Amino acid sequence: MKRKGQVTLPTDMDIIQETKEIVDRLGVDAIRDCDGTQMPETLKHLPVKIYSTYYTTRKDNEWAMKNRDEIQQVYLMTRFYTAMNEDSLFIPLMSEFYSEQLKPNSYDDIRKWWEVVDRVTGERLDPDKWLYHEDTMTVEIKKPEPFHDYTVSFLAYIMWDPVHMYNFIVNSWENVEHQIGYDVRQPKTQKYVLEKLRRWLEANPGTDVVRFTTFFHQFTLVFNEKGKEKFVDWFGYSASVSPYILEQFEKEVGYTFRPEFIIDKGYHNNTFRMPSKEFRDFMNFQMREVAKLTKKFVDLCHEYGKEAMMFLGDHWIGTEPFGPYFKEIGLDAVVGSVGNGTTLRLISDIPGVKYTEGRFLPYFFPDVFNENGNPLKEAKENWVTARRAILRKPLDRIGYGGYLKLAYEQEGFIDYIEKVCDEFRMLYDNIGSEKPYSHMTVGILNAWGQVRSWGTHMVAHAIDYKQTYSYAGILESLSGMPFDVKFLSFEEVMDSYEVLEQCDVIINIGDAYTATSGGNVWDNPMLIEHIKRFVAEGKGFIGVGEPTASEHQGRYFQMANVLGVNKEVGFSLSTDKYNWDIHDHFITKGFSKISFGEEIKNIYALDGARILAMEKHNVQMAVNEFGNGRSVYFSGLPYSFENSRLFYKAIFWAASKENRIKCWFSENYNIEVNYYPGTGKYCLVNNTDILQETVIYDGRGHKEELALKGNEIMWKHYERNCSDNLTV
Amino acid sequence: MKRKGQVTLPTDMDIIQETKEIVDRLGVDAIRDCDGTQMPETLKHLPVKIYSTYYTTRKDNEWAMKNRDEIQQVYLMTRFYTAMNEDSLFIPLMSEFYSEQLKPNSYDDIRKWWEVVDRVTGERLDPDKWLYHEDTMTVEIKKPEPFHDYTVSFLAYIMWDPVHMYNFIVNSWENVEHQIGYDVRQPKTQKYVLEKLRRWLEANPGTDVVRFTTFFHQFTLVFNEKGKEKFVDWFGYSASVSPYILEQFEKEVGYTFRPEFIIDKGYHNNTFRMPSKEFRDFMNFQMREVAKLTKKFVDLCHEYGKEAMMFLGDHWIGTEPFGPYFKEIGLDAVVGSVGNGTTLRLISDIPGVKYTEGRFLPYFFPDVFNENGNPLKEAKENWVTARRAILRKPLDRIGYGGYLKLAYEQEGFIDYIEKVCDEFRMLYDNIGSEKPYSHMTVGILNAWGQVRSWGTHMVAHAIDYKQTYSYAGILESLSGMPFDVKFLSFEEVMDSYEVLEQCDVIINIGDAYTATSGGNVWDNPMLIEHIKRFVAEGKGFIGVGEPTASEHQGRYFQMANVLGVNKEVGFSLSTDKYNWDIHDHFITKGFSKISFGEEIKNIYALDGARILAMEKHNVQMAVNEFGNGRSVYFSGLPYSFENSRLFYKAIFWAASKENRIKCWFSENYNIEVNYYPGTGKYCLVNNTDILQETVIYDGRGHKEELALKGNEIMWKHYERNCSDNLTV
Repeated sequence: MKRKGQVTLPTDMDIIQETKEIVDRLGVDAIRDCDGTQMPETLKHLPVKIYSTYYTTRKDNEWAMKNRDEIQQVYLMTRFYTAMNEDSLFIPLMSEFYSEQLKPNSYDDIRKWWEVVDRVTGERLDPDKWLYHEDTMTVEIKKPEPFHDYTVSFLAYIMWDPVHMYNFIVNSWENVEHQIGYDVRQPKTQKYVLEKLRRWLEANPGTDVVRFTTFFHQFTLVFNEKGKEKFVDWFGYSASVSPYILEQFEKEVGYTFRPEFIIDKGYHNNTFRMPSKEFRDFMNFQMREVAKLTKKFVDLCHEYGKEAMMFLGDHWIGTEPFGPYFKEIGLDAVVGSVGNGTTLRLISDIPGVKYTEGRFLPYFFPDVFNENGNPLKEAKENWVTARRAILRKPLDRIGYGGYLKLAYEQEGFIDYIEKVCDEFRMLYDNIGSEKPYSHMTVGILNAWGQVRSWGTHMVAHAIDYKQTYSYAGILESLSGMPFDVKFLSFEEVMDSYEVLEQCDVIINIGDAYTATSGGNVWDNPMLIEHIKRFVAEGKGFIGVGEPTASEHQGRYFQMANVLGVNKEVGFSLSTDKYNWDIHDHFITKGFSKISFGEEIKNIYALDGARILAMEKHNVQMAVNEFGNGRSVYFSGLPYSFENSRLFYKAIFWAASKENRIKCWFSENYNIEVNYYPGTGKYCLVNNTDILQETVIYDGRGHKEELALKGNEIMWKHYERNCSDNLTV
Repeated sequence: MKRKGQVTLPTDMDIIQETKEIVDRLGVDAIRDCDGTQMPETLKHLPVKIYSTYYTTRKDNEWAMKNRDEIQQVYLMTRFYTAMNEDSLFIPLMSEFYSEQLKPNSYDDIRKWWEVVDRVTGERLDPDKWLYHEDTMTVEIKKPEPFHDYTVSFLAYIMWDPVHMYNFIVNSWENVEHQIGYDVRQPKTQKYVLEKLRRWLEANPGTDVVRFTTFFHQFTLVFNEKGKEKFVDWFGYSASVSPYILEQFEKEVGYTFRPEFIIDKGYHNNTFRMPSKEFRDFMNFQMREVAKLTKKFVDLCHEYGKEAMMFLGDHWIGTEPFGPYFKEIGLDAVVGSVGNGTTLRLISDIPGVKYTEGRFLPYFFPDVFNENGNPLKEAKENWVTARRAILRKPLDRIGYGGYLKLAYEQEGFIDYIEKVCDEFRMLYDNIGSEKPYSHMTVGILNAWGQVRSWGTHMVAHAIDYKQTYSYAGILESLSGMPFDVKFLSFEEVMDSYEVLEQCDVIINIGDAYTATSGGNVWDNPMLIEHIKRFVAEGKGFIGVGEPTASEHQGRYFQMANVLGVNKEVGFSLSTDKYNWDIHDHFITKGFSKISFGEEIKNIYALDGARILAMEKHNVQMAVNEFGNGRSVYFSGLPYSFENSRLFYKAIFWAASKENRIKCWFSENYNIEVNYYPGTGKYCLVNNTDILQETVIYDGRGHKEELALKGNEIMWKHYERNCSDNLTV
């Protein structure tokens, strides 16, 4: 009899009988409801765990309307308005926002909580210089400076919960009341919601797991005047505000709050921006306070003998699972949406919970389950992409969400999901509970460090931007590679050289001046000293895109003489550049045309560096030596099996370990190899859906010719670990 | 009998008889010697003016070697050296410089005139912390900060005049003594050189024109350790220095000189860098002092009844013909090398001289006159490219340089030059002395303004860089267009709105943070107010590349809401961008595939702007309206007849005068039309070498079908000026 368990499935009133059948076929051990579905009473008696989706912040419009002052709020900024003369300038607050979603909060003192900013001078206008016309929702600036641009930053009530609105639109719901979010951090609502949860827990003895979707603050998701998405930052704190919270914040930090801390010139303090000190303070304050309050909800669940599970999404702001306060919450589990290997690790690496669960794609929603969609293809891609990351750090459970009926009626879909469930359990058992073998430790260096582990370059739903896919490819590659990955912040590297010593290779990725590459932080001598010493002592540095970019003292890349490349930004055109030859190299051997993604212009090689790839006199890849160490530059590297191999070789070369690469290694880059000391097994995984032949090297470097069928996983047994003096 | 005159030709000892023949055929009225040639005595009796090339700063090694302290000097900076530990760091000064060209000046106080800079902190090291080992030409930093980078800025004597060295290499000269440059600004040399000129003037009564090549300071031209060009800035002041000069400068400005004012972090204060206050002070000081001294040389020539002509090149630094002191020099003429339309205007627009002369390409040197070269093709291209600029502002004379023998022996070459000379005189006569008709005035706004008229984006010998050709195309287009072109500096526009009022369209061109686009200057409210007011009142603004770029207060382009475009540098990725439709438009009508040159990435359109061209979601061209005015954005526009027309239409549209474009207009963009009120003539010029059919519109908008043979110029007569109320 096949092993069962570790799988969660949604259900609904319209699919009761079929649910039983599927539970059996898939070995499901937990069923759940979702937004828009209902758990049938009869199914609660199945021998499975019952998850109940629980919303702390919405689905109670009566409460919201009775306590309008505690409706959730968000900081918004209007577009730029130019004063064309000295006459009053009128700025209509809502002309770019969706009036059914947002409503200016003029209940609280607008002179304190709103801000009119002259965006030419950067100065905040004295509140005496403007007034608000409630009737037209317009700010009037009485005597503007002609031809200056002005913006209004204002607090708005969220009159339609963004996730509810998103689901409403995607599903074409009709006659469904817009759900209003209330702010659980505020006193009346907090008391009410906690009491309500207690009542609910009492009333639902059949629930085993309370699946919180989610806690208190929605990530920033704002719709424009046409009801289309205007701004989305899955990491954004802009909707985690209220005067109540901000006054507490002021008391704690001892300085006056300014809307600009959140608004950040209209960029909002999004995950790509270098965080300001004030924003860091605010984030820390929120993480701590959210953790404190979340714990109350979790404790209540435990009091009633239920598990508490958090959905990693929606109102997750402040819970940051890799943050400093998360473990104190005492959650039993986290469940999140798996879009690829990176998002899988974002969930499976979470510390301090008993188990993690990945909700795989596609979500059973009509946007994919329709005549034009191909849900089966999406499911296959999703599974194969995520699988290589599972092999590094498995989730404890997998699951799906949405309308089960849609999946059930889709030909061949449940059959495939059944295979996935079986394969997942097989992987899980073979991997065992010990850490898989790692060749070395790779450190990703950016402004966020551990708190945004796997999360940089990531956008909601794992959809890439033109400006991110070339960088996201690095993390996606790493998500399934036999390395330990550490996420380091600039601050900790400045403060201590020791944090670097755990690493073999440090990687800095991103566009100039963003939070991922670091901007002006590279003018800090301690950072420079530590990283250069690290490389000089024999370790590796890999830069991708515009790494260490900060125009300062004659260079654009502050690590230019480590990287061996710099960017010509127009200041040194008068200096002749002669190093344009392309060299053969260990890293690029066997590769012909490499796809580097988005072009980075005007990268040139310094004397002594070796160019490995170049297009139109833009260097795409180069290697250099510095002291006893090495560095590799990539202009970008979108994820592909081929690029992943290229990057794998680059890491080994950067760490000066290229002579040890043929250990747990497949000559064919479509196959990856992982070794599990805990079970003594090693695993070969064919990432493609066609037959692949290869030569495999085990931990001793012994080779074997093998063929793997499309998507096949092959498990083999091994006793000895990789020999340190192996040379191939 | 055909008209003669206005043509200068080089001659030499080996071509005496043939010179007479050519003088007659070409209508030559002046002959000259060059570097490496000699004027035959017998030719001095021809009925032509005799130019004598005169070198104030070289060709007298005896003097140089006897007065080594007054040899010319240049500021140099070593590359970056990293201290790999706390031990002494040794920086060899000359490892990247050509030892036959340069020699460190340790004669003057190196503690004052040299500088060791920590390029991590930007701090100047106390001179006690380093010492110089004369024998190895090495600076030793005694206790460096580990992993900091250091550079040494030092003064060096120029032991081989860079132009002499260049000519030496190009001509493969052998057994020619390296000419050493001496500094005419210094007292002993100044006295000596002035006396020597007087003796020379007395000894050379046959000379009519003293052709100074040139005055005192060579533009920055430095060779590397292999004798290859290392750094070249045709506008560079780095070789115009000496302690003698710098001490005067200190006295005048009242602050201490620092090498860094010139070195500028190793970029040198090149023409693409935003000039610092100190560099501006220095430039002004040099321009004034050079003018004062140059006047002494010119006055001497006049005393002996000779004309004084300056070659615009080589040791021209400080003479800046568009600068504030140039007119005071009293020069009779300027001669310069014509590489294209832009360089032609760089010469022909020079104010304050009696006449200008263009030295056309190719220079009669063996680098072109050889089996693989095609000098005739070069001559044709050079002439046709320059001709359209001549039609806007003619030179008074044309000429050639080099070894006449090479030209004479090149089949068909002299025949073609004869045609050029005839055509030049014909143009000159038809144009007359009055200004040609201008449809409007276009202002080019950058850091330099008038002093670098036509000179921004220009590189020595009109050879483009990858980073300049897309911008240089704008000036090249304008050089032959029926517009008045004004060069405005940011400073004057900040100081006064009135300077803008003369203009119909303002153009800002260049890469972010360069002297041409302006960088942080755009954070200045006065600049913003004036430019916005200008547009709002109905005028036009055209931005090319990264115009007005300065990341500040939420925008990368400070004129974003005028231009209708901004650049996504990674900070606003979270904001949705919906404006991606491409629109038909007056400007692009009739154009299919436009070549925009170098890609500028991540330009997006703001709401309300209309995209006219886009590739890979990078906007290449867009139009917008602001107040009563308009703006056009181009990512770049390399010069071509087609692009020139596109730009022409953009100017008319930006100025809201598109309904008046069919006045002095050719439907076929290969033909350009100019009208000359002074002679009542108008001219059609076919820029291509093949037959072109077109429809021509005269000043009343009356049209006529016409055909012009390859390269043909057609002159027609007209009485009435363009009607103001013309609407087509």
